[in-house]
Amino acid sequence: MSALPNVNEHDKPKVEAVVLLSGGLDSATVLAIAKRDGYACHALSIDYGQRHRFELDCAARVSKAIGGVDHKVVRVDLRAFGGSALTADIDVPMHDRVDEIGGAIPITYVPARNLVFLSLAVAYAETLGAMDIFIGVNAVDYSGYPDCRPAFVQAFEAVANVATKAGAEGQRVRINTPIIALSKAEIIRTGSSLGVDYGLTTSCYNPAGDMIACGHCDSCLLRRQGFEQAGVVDPTRYAVTPIGDCR
Amino acid sequence: MSALPNVNEHDKPKVEAVVLLSGGLDSATVLAIAKRDGYACHALSIDYGQRHRFELDCAARVSKAIGGVDHKVVRVDLRAFGGSALTADIDVPMHDRVDEIGGAIPITYVPARNLVFLSLAVAYAETLGAMDIFIGVNAVDYSGYPDCRPAFVQAFEAVANVATKAGAEGQRVRINTPIIALSKAEIIRTGSSLGVDYGLTTSCYNPAGDMIACGHCDSCLLRRQGFEQAGVVDPTRYAVTPIGDCR
Repeated sequence: MSALPNVNEHDKPKVEAVVLLSGGLDSATVLAIAKRDGYACHALSIDYGQRHRFELDCAARVSKAIGGVDHKVVRVDLRAFGGSALTADIDVPMHDRVDEIGGAIPITYVPARNLVFLSLAVAYAETLGAMDIFIGVNAVDYSGYPDCRPAFVQAFEAVANVATKAGAEGQRVRINTPIIALSKAEIIRTGSSLGVDYGLTTSCYNPAGDMIACGHCDSCLLRRQGFEQAGVVDPTRYAVTPIGDCR
Repeated sequence: MSALPNVNEHDKPKVEAVVLLSGGLDSATVLAIAKRDGYACHALSIDYGQRHRFELDCAARVSKAIGGVDHKVVRVDLRAFGGSALTADIDVPMHDRVDEIGGAIPITYVPARNLVFLSLAVAYAETLGAMDIFIGVNAVDYSGYPDCRPAFVQAFEAVANVATKAGAEGQRVRINTPIIALSKAEIIRTGSSLGVDYGLTTSCYNPAGDMIACGHCDSCLLRRQGFEQAGVVDPTRYAVTPIGDCR
């Protein structure tokens, strides 16, 4: 009787997961967390007609750098509906300070975007036989989008489990949101400790050029403040003077 | 003081709705029902890379004939995921009799299709300010798809109401499924009484040509049986001999 072979850590079958990857800071961190936790990560980016389409190139580089199994870009034309500064000819609001963000849901909200994205992730997961989906929603340092809140994620997980063949057959789809309760600074610290190169990511809604951020949209302001508060050097190239000089 | 003007019935502001329209029999009936019930109907079709893409032309004709306010086709590439006979190079199962359909969820199931479609309908409705969405799901004479069941619709309505700006602000999105509990024959009788021209619709998953149905896929068999049971002449052109000769 022969002994069982030694199983190297790298030979263990990994649990497959679909990770929504925008090319931004949050989803890059989520990919690194899912990787750390042992998932075989299939990165999924959505080309939805976004103004800041350059983020898709960033997503490809981020997936490669962090070690996604593969990276798929799927097209859905949300520009056909418009209704957002990111998908229609509407100016992106610009501010000088983070405390100017808040109150009403801003015009950068893309109607039902995370509902559409998670639905596509469920479709992809089902074809892979994966039961885990990761998304970088965050309900702390965010722009007040309704589809970033825990109540949304819980309701989505419920519908995912009756929408699909796997769910109908008794398996359970999980929507994993490892950064939902973290501040932007905590996200950056976590990602930095996992070796994420944030210089590959972009957060800007209104870039002045490839990898040149405007520095004044909600997303830039939250990112800048996050690096400051985390005590981590911000690798972002901004088109304008740093935040300290804007006050 | 002037008297209030007479308001003609046709001048009343109508409630706006998004109606998912595939070009098939079921959704054509749903559009006619929504129109009868006084909704201003924005028809929405999804070009998802389906094998039977010809149904999109049918949808345009159906919307015009029934009187949709407008008809929008939105693209989402579900062929990028595959996993179904409708979106990958997999043969559509063919049968001779309706009683051969059933049991396991068939390979014509497109992973999470109605989840994706309804999510897009919610996105569109939100840009229109519409709170009503209509979908022609049916849980009686159907192929056993999980995303046609009442439990799915209820769970989806719940997530739609936390996913959106309107929901976050206290308004209520309604997912209307007027034919979910009808047999195919009842659907056909209802549509016929509302003047639906079923000759404009197509149900076939595997058409032999534009408006020539295979007669042997699940969808053709259910359609044929529905017309027979309804006692309504079936306007469909089939590539094969009628059902009576196939037994």
